[in-house]
Amino acid sequence: MELVLRRRLELYAGRAHRELALEVAKHLEVRLGPMVLKDFADGEIYCRFGDSVRGKDVFILQTHAGPVNDSIFEQLIMIDAAKRASADRITAVCPYYGYSRQDRKSAGREPITAKLVSDLFAAAGADRIVSVDLHSGQIQGFFDGPVDHLTAMPVLIEYLKRHADEDFVIVAPDAGRVKVASRYSQYLNADVAFVHKRRPKGTANVVEALDVVGEVSGRRCVLIDDMIDTAGTICAAAELLVAKGASEVWAMATHGLLSGQAVDRLKASDISRVVVTDTLPLSEERRFDKLEVLSIAKVLADAIAAVFEDGSVSNIFKGDNLS
Amino acid sequence: MELVLRRRLELYAGRAHRELALEVAKHLEVRLGPMVLKDFADGEIYCRFGDSVRGKDVFILQTHAGPVNDSIFEQLIMIDAAKRASADRITAVCPYYGYSRQDRKSAGREPITAKLVSDLFAAAGADRIVSVDLHSGQIQGFFDGPVDHLTAMPVLIEYLKRHADEDFVIVAPDAGRVKVASRYSQYLNADVAFVHKRRPKGTANVVEALDVVGEVSGRRCVLIDDMIDTAGTICAAAELLVAKGASEVWAMATHGLLSGQAVDRLKASDISRVVVTDTLPLSEERRFDKLEVLSIAKVLADAIAAVFEDGSVSNIFKGDNLS
Amino acid sequence: MELVLRRRLELYAGRAHRELALEVAKHLEVRLGPMVLKDFADGEIYCRFGDSVRGKDVFILQTHAGPVNDSIFEQLIMIDAAKRASADRITAVCPYYGYSRQDRKSAGREPITAKLVSDLFAAAGADRIVSVDLHSGQIQGFFDGPVDHLTAMPVLIEYLKRHADEDFVIVAPDAGRVKVASRYSQYLNADVAFVHKRRPKGTANVVEALDVVGEVSGRRCVLIDDMIDTAGTICAAAELLVAKGASEVWAMATHGLLSGQAVDRLKASDISRVVVTDTLPLSEERRFDKLEVLSIAKVLADAIAAVFEDGSVSNIFKGDNLS
Amino acid sequence: MELVLRRRLELYAGRAHRELALEVAKHLEVRLGPMVLKDFADGEIYCRFGDSVRGKDVFILQTHAGPVNDSIFEQLIMIDAAKRASADRITAVCPYYGYSRQDRKSAGREPITAKLVSDLFAAAGADRIVSVDLHSGQIQGFFDGPVDHLTAMPVLIEYLKRHADEDFVIVAPDAGRVKVASRYSQYLNADVAFVHKRRPKGTANVVEALDVVGEVSGRRCVLIDDMIDTAGTICAAAELLVAKGASEVWAMATHGLLSGQAVDRLKASDISRVVVTDTLPLSEERRFDKLEVLSIAKVLADAIAAVFEDGSVSNIFKGDNLS
Amino acid sequence: MELVLRRRLELYAGRAHRELALEVAKHLEVRLGPMVLKDFADGEIYCRFGDSVRGKDVFILQTHAGPVNDSIFEQLIMIDAAKRASADRITAVCPYYGYSRQDRKSAGREPITAKLVSDLFAAAGADRIVSVDLHSGQIQGFFDGPVDHLTAMPVLIEYLKRHADEDFVIVAPDAGRVKVASRYSQYLNADVAFVHKRRPKGTANVVEALDVVGEVSGRRCVLIDDMIDTAGTICAAAELLVAKGASEVWAMATHGLLSGQAVDRLKASDISRVVVTDTLPLSEERRFDKLEVLSIAKVLADAIAAVFEDGSVSNIFKGDNLS
Amino acid sequence: MELVLRRRLELYAGRAHRELALEVAKHLEVRLGPMVLKDFADGEIYCRFGDSVRGKDVFILQTHAGPVNDSIFEQLIMIDAAKRASADRITAVCPYYGYSRQDRKSAGREPITAKLVSDLFAAAGADRIVSVDLHSGQIQGFFDGPVDHLTAMPVLIEYLKRHADEDFVIVAPDAGRVKVASRYSQYLNADVAFVHKRRPKGTANVVEALDVVGEVSGRRCVLIDDMIDTAGTICAAAELLVAKGASEVWAMATHGLLSGQAVDRLKASDISRVVVTDTLPLSEERRFDKLEVLSIAKVLADAIAAVFEDGSVSNIFKGDNLS
Repeated sequence: MELVLRRRLELYAGRAHRELALEVAKHLEVRLGPMVLKDFADGEIYCRFGDSVRGKDVFILQTHAGPVNDSIFEQLIMIDAAKRASADRITAVCPYYGYSRQDRKSAGREPITAKLVSDLFAAAGADRIVSVDLHSGQIQGFFDGPVDHLTAMPVLIEYLKRHADEDFVIVAPDAGRVKVASRYSQYLNADVAFVHKRRPKGTANVVEALDVVGEVSGRRCVLIDDMIDTAGTICAAAELLVAKGASEVWAMATHGLLSGQAVDRLKASDISRVVVTDTLPLSEERRFDKLEVLSIAKVLADAIAAVFEDGSVSNIFKGDNLS
Repeated sequence: MELVLRRRLELYAGRAHRELALEVAKHLEVRLGPMVLKDFADGEIYCRFGDSVRGKDVFILQTHAGPVNDSIFEQLIMIDAAKRASADRITAVCPYYGYSRQDRKSAGREPITAKLVSDLFAAAGADRIVSVDLHSGQIQGFFDGPVDHLTAMPVLIEYLKRHADEDFVIVAPDAGRVKVASRYSQYLNADVAFVHKRRPKGTANVVEALDVVGEVSGRRCVLIDDMIDTAGTICAAAELLVAKGASEVWAMATHGLLSGQAVDRLKASDISRVVVTDTLPLSEERRFDKLEVLSIAKVLADAIAAVFEDGSVSNIFKGDNLS
Repeated sequence: MELVLRRRLELYAGRAHRELALEVAKHLEVRLGPMVLKDFADGEIYCRFGDSVRGKDVFILQTHAGPVNDSIFEQLIMIDAAKRASADRITAVCPYYGYSRQDRKSAGREPITAKLVSDLFAAAGADRIVSVDLHSGQIQGFFDGPVDHLTAMPVLIEYLKRHADEDFVIVAPDAGRVKVASRYSQYLNADVAFVHKRRPKGTANVVEALDVVGEVSGRRCVLIDDMIDTAGTICAAAELLVAKGASEVWAMATHGLLSGQAVDRLKASDISRVVVTDTLPLSEERRFDKLEVLSIAKVLADAIAAVFEDGSVSNIFKGDNLS
Repeated sequence: MELVLRRRLELYAGRAHRELALEVAKHLEVRLGPMVLKDFADGEIYCRFGDSVRGKDVFILQTHAGPVNDSIFEQLIMIDAAKRASADRITAVCPYYGYSRQDRKSAGREPITAKLVSDLFAAAGADRIVSVDLHSGQIQGFFDGPVDHLTAMPVLIEYLKRHADEDFVIVAPDAGRVKVASRYSQYLNADVAFVHKRRPKGTANVVEALDVVGEVSGRRCVLIDDMIDTAGTICAAAELLVAKGASEVWAMATHGLLSGQAVDRLKASDISRVVVTDTLPLSEERRFDKLEVLSIAKVLADAIAAVFEDGSVSNIFKGDNLS
Repeated sequence: MELVLRRRLELYAGRAHRELALEVAKHLEVRLGPMVLKDFADGEIYCRFGDSVRGKDVFILQTHAGPVNDSIFEQLIMIDAAKRASADRITAVCPYYGYSRQDRKSAGREPITAKLVSDLFAAAGADRIVSVDLHSGQIQGFFDGPVDHLTAMPVLIEYLKRHADEDFVIVAPDAGRVKVASRYSQYLNADVAFVHKRRPKGTANVVEALDVVGEVSGRRCVLIDDMIDTAGTICAAAELLVAKGASEVWAMATHGLLSGQAVDRLKASDISRVVVTDTLPLSEERRFDKLEVLSIAKVLADAIAAVFEDGSVSNIFKGDNLS
Repeated sequence: MELVLRRRLELYAGRAHRELALEVAKHLEVRLGPMVLKDFADGEIYCRFGDSVRGKDVFILQTHAGPVNDSIFEQLIMIDAAKRASADRITAVCPYYGYSRQDRKSAGREPITAKLVSDLFAAAGADRIVSVDLHSGQIQGFFDGPVDHLTAMPVLIEYLKRHADEDFVIVAPDAGRVKVASRYSQYLNADVAFVHKRRPKGTANVVEALDVVGEVSGRRCVLIDDMIDTAGTICAAAELLVAKGASEVWAMATHGLLSGQAVDRLKASDISRVVVTDTLPLSEERRFDKLEVLSIAKVLADAIAAVFEDGSVSNIFKGDNLS
């Protein structure tokens, strides 16, 4: 018995962000695979693939939206089911990769949870991971297989080019993000600055205060980060920038977590425009006037198609999807 | 440089059931290790061991109470942190082991989540697992290291012996639990019966109905299960037993999940007494008159001590802790 | 250089049950691959594939017939040879999976040999396992890859429907098998009963005796089990059923091990008909008048074809091949 | 809770060669641990440790005597049981390591069974291996942990020194064993020769014949090999040596498999003395006049003691236990 | 047989930086273990431990000095030998961890060599890694076991406090190092600035130029980096700082690679003082007047002692050894 | 989305022996894939694939020429890059496999570096290995996947048949190589002899001397080995052969390492002709009159084509490529 081998793309999604999955499917011109997913009364997740995945090239899309542990667990369970159902290859597509900030120990006896998440995906049976703007590029090295690291940078830069006139400063909201800000500044041919914590000079005062390094006075400042979570850091940075004479402050990030007080803080802040992509779901009640949400679906769809067809993912970004 | 090797027991606990952990610590006459555990606004868990665990024999106790994915994830993160902090040996103590009913595929394209959980513990770095009354004994084989499988059977049987006069029937609430019921009946020298689903005989009717196999009329029936979750099955069984003439119905189980409508169902049911252990937390508002909660803490403490001291765990149960 | 990938099925068999292998090959319309297999004088097995298996989809069929360790070892060696000869994918087809009853610890300090066997297959290089009516469904979870769990239930039920008139009771020969009996009863719309061990009531007697739960008087009883090994349990059950007034007793099982005294016991027993499949070889001298052997070859062939063609295995059984 | 760590040696043995195990235990002045080992009617092996092995340094001695697959399997099952019973460290002591001649592919599509056996030990849970005179030293590299490779060379050389006067030639029975023969010759300050297959020169004859390289005429020849299996090679070599004028022929080997026709062949052969050690059991009926069996027990006991006490194993042999 | 377990520290070193190893041994008051290490004529490395390491706590110190592949390979071979010689625990001490800058993909189809190095250590048998000032903290997550991440920060800060008066600016030589510079500035209560590449504003010029962000005019600038390799970046930064009016420029780093033209560049540069530690060997001919080399030996010795005695490593640094 | 799967061969090479790679590519009629490989100033290797290898069948050719650690490391890095770039299958083609002589412990506390190298390839992500004339056939068993073991024997034998008249003796330069010499002698229908070390008989002299076993007087001797490294052993053997009356001495080997004094020794030796293949590069200055270098490229190309097309590699050698 002999047959010609064919590869068939099957796209399945967890329940964390169904809108994004549908949009990606539309771009790919495939259906979203049928999937039973439900919670039992005790909170355990039940999953069953509605169609045979035997021998298929299965992409399981789940963004790690809150409740983050449930989102990750659901994806792990789907991967386990696909593995046992003889999928040929399983790609975990995680537009937002949970726990990515816990990518190193900042104190003794802490976990490195971003690595743990990677290990869990490997244990469940994922063959590869696709993600967008990981908090640090080193997370790629946590997984012992191919990681396609996409970026929303083209989407965000294109927005900036369309909506902002030329004279602005890219500002990193803390010292650890200067490198990313610097990359944006190179693309945009803009100045760069950063906010950082310091102890006031010449005092014995142990209270740290924020300070800006770089020239911001009289200019529009664009704060760039990979994510906006509780918005505390970014709003404090914005306040300082205004205090230092900035004419206007925008905030841009790939991932709009907008947890806890974020929405209220941003509304009340000195920031005049907040731009994120839809790697995470944003319900209507968390949307507000000065928020713009750009679509990441095409970026994901192009990458999935390239993975499926053995094309080049880095070509999609002309090599800029790595850090 | 040379030193005599000492082993030091360190007991740490997640947040799922702190009362039980404290009681276990009291039995062991150790303190519960200091531990920072908190949720970030976006739901990510942060963990840090308060003391050095380098070279220690670390027991990490977490029952998989709901929200079950959070409980499991918290334990995984604690294990990762202990591993990276150079713990000598890490034992995951899971009084209730989550997803234990998903221990095989009951339909194609399902996961085997109980195995996945085991794989996740291995990936995080657990060296051994201690658990109580796993839904099936085979789950021991899912983990590629030692599993100490404890049982609440002595606690429950001792209760029965103390509170029930002699003439009762042990009843399995479905066909899959007859074996466990049969073991109880052997210990108690009691009759056994079981409830199962069947299509009414001699009809073309496809609706399944419950039926009892065994004699229950005029007798006190004790329904035995490993867990009471939504209590649907057990309440339906009780109703049938009463309809078949049972004089009284008790329900006993190791794990009192009491999810969803369980409390209301049990209160309204024909069951006159419900007995569970405290492997899972039961808040005051979920306690009710006919509910008895027995303590599992001594069983856990004895097992932990035996593991620590390289004693025999099966001796604690005189060899009855396995199925 | 580029070529279109083709998959080619190659079926090879060990020496444990060549007749079955040939029959499966016939159903699949493939030849049985050429294979040198011999024992050296010291009992070591020598194996060599007669044709190149490089890049092939290799199925290695071996039932774990006695001498069971030799059968398993031979299959492991064949898998190792196929792996080193660059087979693309290796499926271990084990119609009867050895040591499947040792799937959990029934006492401390025992092995879980069914898990060990699974680990050995993984270590040798098997990518997937196909088996029939595993002693417990959880064994699927022992292997860290796809397991196609087939069942002889359709074959046995079809036999019952053809040969038995309607009024019979399905009887489980012990408490642990009630679940399987209950599944048969649901399909056949029949009553169910079970035999179990108990201490005689109201006595201090420690000798256990058998008892029946369920109504069997005046009815034909069909004892259902996954396997008949020494036939001790099933013959004792049959004796009891007759003593309790059963009008006739049949015994049915997927796997006919018929070890030790089994044949003599069955011949001498109250059982009027014994029905098994040919997952295990039965030499002429172990066949007897009241024994019927049904063929499992088509079930295996259909599953192998589905695995090869990336079809659905659960469709073959309409979803009933799992427990 | 804190305790001083102690290590306790526990020696257990399979059923393949109980006499040797008892002798090793005597040398070590320990008891042989209590162990239930039996065969079920269908040939499956049952095993249970009679005492707790939790935290112990467990040595599991089993020589791979025929039936070789049963011997290996029994040892694997014992290792699995010890692992699940929480042994601290498990050492597989294999005086004769089965399948050691299948240590490389001598033709395409063959297995490398000696490596497979190593992988099986690793899969079962062995932490280290102790063996005597492996067929090739490279087998040490097959196992991914420590292998203590012992040798019977001191025992055999001591015998030769005591029983043989000085003028003899060490003869390798085939080209692949010249290296070992050469090592003996260096220790004994003796000449060396070897027998090998060749096509008769100057003929078109394809039949291979044996030839001797080295001077043997008028001298006592000592054939040295690692094992005597069917004795075919060694008896043919002896015949040739006599034909070439050897005054006497002895045969020495570490492992006396003496399979198939070996005993009859050796009795009938030109060999006047056969010397082996007791790494393998030799029942009375396989013993014969010109056979001498030397004890390996002390070598094994010394090595086990050194492993247990973290002493040096190579010191036992003054560095000569490796090839 | 029973014995009290003792742990014995054994310190061995490769040939990359023997002076450092001797100094560490002196601090620990242990001898450096005897070790045969030599190169064969074809460049293969031979290694043999001079003493038994069975059961020992073995630390293998090798800094990844150039030729870097030889240094890493030598350490891997030593680890393999220690593993096979039954060392109880193997710690790879790598004062400078090679390839640490290749810790992520900066372009498609690149390796992540820092992760590969970690995988190689795991494959060889290292149980843990000790290193100093990894290029990024995430590298800790690359290794699937404990990593003790030490830092030279206390040594460098202590130097600064002793030698510099108060008014200086900490300068990061590029955008990716701002975080580290910021941490120094916090400890020293100093200002911070950074140099980065940018395209000159308002031009179409594609040539990138360096720019400074932060105030440096009239002040002493201390360039801080984890390593000085070819010194290109740091000398260019210094030149710019001087051009921008800096009164003086110092350069400090943990690792003094000083490859290629580094020494000449530094000598010729505007930098008045270069301070590194001795994690890497610096031969006499590469030393020059304005170079200061501080000793890292005590930091390493304290960490090794803490690892050996199960003490706390983070206490050595009061928690500051992580990033 | 569905597509027909195609396999595309991509041949890439490291820098150790580019001439051979180009010749292999020519035989295969493929281009050598574009590859950036360079050394940084500190000796770290940088690598980047010039084209996408996603989904490709990638062969990475690197012979382990000196500096051997660099050659191996470069290949490991290329494999890591290919794995992370999603190559479908990665074959490490190592014409000469480094460290192959360290394939067992010849003294306690030594590494088994040939196994380590195999483990490193597995850790980096190689799926299979292709090599020529491994020092021992057992090295095939070190790698846990397919190893295609090629041989230069047909090339060397063909040379001998063409250039030598019939009467010669095949001589092994030491006892460990007799087996290989014997195989050549069988193919060539020639006599065999060997040189070995021995202590002079009848003396107390501990100095070892060389001796010949077999008849060499008046005949042409062909010394056969797998490699010529420093040529010390082979030149000493040649000297002895001439002393024993050999009429002429040739030396043949697969791998011409020619390290250290080899070239000078060979030139000055009694050997009249030296024949090797080009598995290793030989620069012009190391070539000399009596040296003949035969091409191995076609052997490699045929094997690569067979691997790619799922053909039989052993057919290329008619089954003779294994030992």
